[in-house]
Amino acid sequence: MRATVIYGERDVRLEEVPDPEIHEPGDAIVRVVAACICGSDLWPYRGIRPTPKPRRIGHEMVGVVEQVGDAVSRVSVGDFVIAPFYICDNTCVNCRNGMTTSCLNGLAWGGTDETGARIDGCQGEKVRVPFADGTLVAVPGEPDAAAIPSLLALSDVCGTGHHAAVSAGVGPGASVVVVGDGAVGLSAVLAAKRVGAERIIAMSRHEDRQALACDFGATDVIAERGEEGAERVRELTDGIGADAVLECVGTKESMDQALRSTRPGGRVGFVGVPAGGPELPMQTLFSTNIGVAGGMAPVRGYIEDLLPAVLAGDYSAGRVFDSELPLDRVAEGYAAMDERRAIKVLLRP
Amino acid sequence: MRATVIYGERDVRLEEVPDPEIHEPGDAIVRVVAACICGSDLWPYRGIRPTPKPRRIGHEMVGVVEQVGDAVSRVSVGDFVIAPFYICDNTCVNCRNGMTTSCLNGLAWGGTDETGARIDGCQGEKVRVPFADGTLVAVPGEPDAAAIPSLLALSDVCGTGHHAAVSAGVGPGASVVVVGDGAVGLSAVLAAKRVGAERIIAMSRHEDRQALACDFGATDVIAERGEEGAERVRELTDGIGADAVLECVGTKESMDQALRSTRPGGRVGFVGVPAGGPELPMQTLFSTNIGVAGGMAPVRGYIEDLLPAVLAGDYSAGRVFDSELPLDRVAEGYAAMDERRAIKVLLRP
Repeated sequence: MRATVIYGERDVRLEEVPDPEIHEPGDAIVRVVAACICGSDLWPYRGIRPTPKPRRIGHEMVGVVEQVGDAVSRVSVGDFVIAPFYICDNTCVNCRNGMTTSCLNGLAWGGTDETGARIDGCQGEKVRVPFADGTLVAVPGEPDAAAIPSLLALSDVCGTGHHAAVSAGVGPGASVVVVGDGAVGLSAVLAAKRVGAERIIAMSRHEDRQALACDFGATDVIAERGEEGAERVRELTDGIGADAVLECVGTKESMDQALRSTRPGGRVGFVGVPAGGPELPMQTLFSTNIGVAGGMAPVRGYIEDLLPAVLAGDYSAGRVFDSELPLDRVAEGYAAMDERRAIKVLLRP
Repeated sequence: MRATVIYGERDVRLEEVPDPEIHEPGDAIVRVVAACICGSDLWPYRGIRPTPKPRRIGHEMVGVVEQVGDAVSRVSVGDFVIAPFYICDNTCVNCRNGMTTSCLNGLAWGGTDETGARIDGCQGEKVRVPFADGTLVAVPGEPDAAAIPSLLALSDVCGTGHHAAVSAGVGPGASVVVVGDGAVGLSAVLAAKRVGAERIIAMSRHEDRQALACDFGATDVIAERGEEGAERVRELTDGIGADAVLECVGTKESMDQALRSTRPGGRVGFVGVPAGGPELPMQTLFSTNIGVAGGMAPVRGYIEDLLPAVLAGDYSAGRVFDSELPLDRVAEGYAAMDERRAIKVLLRP
């Protein structure tokens, strides 16, 4: 089969690789129907994270089950399935607490399992799925082609934006600021709208993203940043800042923006992968009572929570995909996202 | 009248000072019935925070209203009142959000008001109370002498421990670790018990405090600290750490202890006044989904929440006072707390 391999900075290639095979009784083999490129894939692509040796890449996909191991009971050959961006057993004590990203048996796409056997990346034609019963969520029936982008979004960005809103405790009537206008930030706008936020302020400087944010439910758009951006937020929020701020970038500047934009006693929900920078300022948190929660989103559970709305056509999370390419043009997809010509690229094997 | 003045390191004196007078129509004059010494008063006492010039000290008291300004309508002469450890109008937008510690008109005991007029410290015979309607909570009727320590505890430590539990979202069935066995930590044990925590693990090395923690509801006591302490916590919590950890100290080591003792997806509620040290590690929070919330406790609202239980004798928060002295021995009280001979000292003017 063919799969994407990253060699180093700005060097991704689609290559012929061995077909995956069942290794463990809990494994399944899934034929990938759609995969995509994540903002976090740009880190090794840009060389910010080194790639010491070539490796498989991609951690988001939907597909059809082609084969299952003897111990698999919750998914069957022919099922259309959604995979979260990580592998989990969904039975350990952390999984039972909803923290599937902290699964005691958790594994990573593109890595190896406990026996040292390769786990495929998702930007390929097929993948071996360890802990298939825990990891995969089967979609009832055969989904419409039109639903596939939104189903694929459940694999990562949709649930990650949702996690920001959940972590910040967004509820009916809340005022919310979303820092970051990438696919996750836009998904956070959609999530805030879904749970009933009254005022949703998107911080964005890009016209196309501003427009999608407004379609997703943003009531206001702020292009300013830093203290000027925070001042604009306060003008819209009784002079004190928002009840909840969803941090969807991960830089020092974006977290600073989030903290400045939150009212005393408010909450920052953060899902941006931390890209170094200074740590959270305790004295500021203490004096303002601003709480901070979030992290690597346990989207496995959110797939089940959000799937009915997606299938009913009420949750158009897939609109964050503004570009679609066949898998053999994966390198173009990386370049388009790197150069910000695309928000998020969907790949069809 | 007489009031306590701090001159510098290990130098507090009871002195003759001018009687307070009504300055503003919203002021009240309160005769102090009981005051106390706070752990945070030890910071200037120990010289950790400099005292550039002599100043009044003390921020916790209960007393009887002796005089009110023309604009005061919610408390009357003769009322027995509890003051929170700060002054607030209880009407601004932050106060309406419950964040009375971020009152837009907030003032500090021992400081000055917007006109430059002195505000008395609470370790004295009388105090002028700005924003008396917002700041003071009147107790219905005349309280029993036996209730006074618990009413006084509502002024700070009781509500501060409660805030740790509220901020960490402690609820029925939760597993809770309390880091810190001072008056606030012990109050946090009591708070966790009140809201239904199932397992309450007190981290303490002092026998008298361990005993009081157990009386307050602790189910387990851990004397170990650092990784060894965290390992002991995990042994008691399915190997993963507690649902909620209440950080009631404020040092680098105590916050580190709290983060190590929390399960993935759990919450740290912190009320220890941050004493420098490194800031919160974003990467740890991200990878574990541990959330952190808390800060300067908005006890004004908690006084009203907890007062009925205290008056009914169901909430013995005042047991944290293990020493009582007349006000003219205030210096002895500081020394006793500094030398850890007392958990918390009650002062009677």
